[in-house]
Amino acid sequence: MTRFGFELIAQDGAARLGRLDTAHGAIDTPAFMPVGTAGTVKAMLPESVAATGAQIILGNTYHLMLRPGAERVARLGGLHQMMNWPGPILTDSGGFQVMSLSKLRKIDERGVTFQSHIDGASHLLTAESSMEIQRLLDADITMAFDECTPFPATPDQATQSMRLSMRWAKRSRQAFVERPGYGLFGIVQGGVYPELRAESAAALKEIGFDGYAIGGLAVGEGQETMLSVLEATTPQLPIQRPRYLMGVGRPSDIIGAVLRGIDMFDCVMPTRSGRTAQAFTRRGAVNLRNARHQDDPRPLEEGCACPACRQYSRAYLHHLTRSEEILGLMLLTWHNLQAYQDLMRGLRAAIAEGRVGEFATQAAEAEALGDIEAL
Amino acid sequence: MTRFGFELIAQDGAARLGRLDTAHGAIDTPAFMPVGTAGTVKAMLPESVAATGAQIILGNTYHLMLRPGAERVARLGGLHQMMNWPGPILTDSGGFQVMSLSKLRKIDERGVTFQSHIDGASHLLTAESSMEIQRLLDADITMAFDECTPFPATPDQATQSMRLSMRWAKRSRQAFVERPGYGLFGIVQGGVYPELRAESAAALKEIGFDGYAIGGLAVGEGQETMLSVLEATTPQLPIQRPRYLMGVGRPSDIIGAVLRGIDMFDCVMPTRSGRTAQAFTRRGAVNLRNARHQDDPRPLEEGCACPACRQYSRAYLHHLTRSEEILGLMLLTWHNLQAYQDLMRGLRAAIAEGRVGEFATQAAEAEALGDIEAL
Repeated sequence: MTRFGFELIAQDGAARLGRLDTAHGAIDTPAFMPVGTAGTVKAMLPESVAATGAQIILGNTYHLMLRPGAERVARLGGLHQMMNWPGPILTDSGGFQVMSLSKLRKIDERGVTFQSHIDGASHLLTAESSMEIQRLLDADITMAFDECTPFPATPDQATQSMRLSMRWAKRSRQAFVERPGYGLFGIVQGGVYPELRAESAAALKEIGFDGYAIGGLAVGEGQETMLSVLEATTPQLPIQRPRYLMGVGRPSDIIGAVLRGIDMFDCVMPTRSGRTAQAFTRRGAVNLRNARHQDDPRPLEEGCACPACRQYSRAYLHHLTRSEEILGLMLLTWHNLQAYQDLMRGLRAAIAEGRVGEFATQAAEAEALGDIEAL
Repeated sequence: MTRFGFELIAQDGAARLGRLDTAHGAIDTPAFMPVGTAGTVKAMLPESVAATGAQIILGNTYHLMLRPGAERVARLGGLHQMMNWPGPILTDSGGFQVMSLSKLRKIDERGVTFQSHIDGASHLLTAESSMEIQRLLDADITMAFDECTPFPATPDQATQSMRLSMRWAKRSRQAFVERPGYGLFGIVQGGVYPELRAESAAALKEIGFDGYAIGGLAVGEGQETMLSVLEATTPQLPIQRPRYLMGVGRPSDIIGAVLRGIDMFDCVMPTRSGRTAQAFTRRGAVNLRNARHQDDPRPLEEGCACPACRQYSRAYLHHLTRSEEILGLMLLTWHNLQAYQDLMRGLRAAIAEGRVGEFATQAAEAEALGDIEAL
């Protein structure tokens, strides 16, 4: 029976190479987790997600509790079986989306009362119900229930919010049902204030978690602020536990965070951008709707192993996006997920070889070049 | 170098088993051609289309001439290379969609002047330009330019329309550039009037084509009328040439037409239905949005080899369609194309074994049963 556990394999400065074992398989870190909001990574077959190199995906408690419902997912054998993803799954706690998507929400010590954005039905989400829902979904990694502190927030607002999240973290820990191979992550809050982040990290360590996430970033504070918060926060976290930066981000955000000791990431950016004709390449973002591609027989990105790059021209991808063809979304989503996984593979190899600083410099230089010249 | 040619392998009553050789490969008939309107079979990777057993797809001249443009397709190496479909392709002549989709069309002896439904630009489509466009697209099978006679039409309207199509057919034959492995099909018109169909068939035979299509059906006349027109028409066509019933249809239409000597079909039904949550099974159409599926762990269709049936439950497919997830369209389109190819495989095997009548009876009985009972 698999033990849930993290092995730190190598370090290069603050950057870490690791391996996380879960009930449904192992994850090489630094890892990027594609987002499978409602039980599907949008526009992708799960075997295609796996083909990009992704080893773990994320599911959203808020979406899944409303539709199809956590009990129903459990009756269908859990999220892995329902969506045909045999690998590890992390679920968020629902706290973030309750605040961003639902209507008429009311927050108090117990939790959040809200109305579903789908049918207006009233629900109460608490630390205890979030743990129960994530257990029903069969998440390998459960996230503690928290409030994502809005940005901007005054020091006082950020303090109140963080301390509420810490009380909920304790209740989450108590409600979490231990199972071999399954783990619970706490979430550091505290806005952009290093002393609040330190207080939060200390509170979580006191409770004790299988991993530590950093929440409440990438909410508008800017990359520089985000990285400085990370720099102040990651040293407060236990070395032998995985660290997860929630909801981040662009490739350069990920590189910057890996350099500061982050092991795990999730973001809708590669999938959402794939549905709006935007592709990530080593030389920056490319908008396939742009007319400059209409006669270009070259691949989107030379050397990329995804089907969009191996089998099609930029001209065809342009045609698909202009014609609003579903295949366009499918191919660009696939490419973007491939690009993100290639980035993570590159980072892992660089850390293993002690050249992650050089890797970061070269990635920044390539991105600064911009797209290949038009024909 | 491949010769374009049809081999009649077996007959069972009027039903025919055959094989059609083209520049890009062979097609076993009776064959169903998935529709790839704008250079993509919607929501499918081409390798997935091939995995269902499809050997040939259809492209639409009207759509492709407007976007991305026939010259552009030719510069990109032709339609096969552009869309990564190495197998045979048939293109229609553009005549049907010019009348159904474009704005401000004007028809005269020369052809059809129309405004693009995309940008309003004015275009003239003639027998000669249709042949040239289909050559630029690199279609293995080119369709003669015709007017699809509307339904209902008086005998006089149907006569005028059919005779115009026959004059265009002659011009199409003259304009078609012969290339090894490439063929040109004429299109029988004449509405629901057997004597007009006979006149049209005779006119086309006089010109001489590599195959003979039957157009102007499945436009509202009903299955019974359609099959009686086929019964009167197929005996007028050369035995040694393939016969293609355009734009048909439901599984029962296809079975009825095969029993009357048709070899090839195309229809948007499996792909379009896949995008509206409707699945074709041997036991009839199933609407996955229906709440009866919401807790059903069974596959959509037991024994089907498509990923929707092998890897997912009806409950999950229901969830995807209710959540309007792209994966839902992808999986149901795949299933429907698989169901259509399985039907064609079944028909071919039955003809080979001299039991196509029995096959048709069993298929009708299975469909009459309706969907499996709810749990």
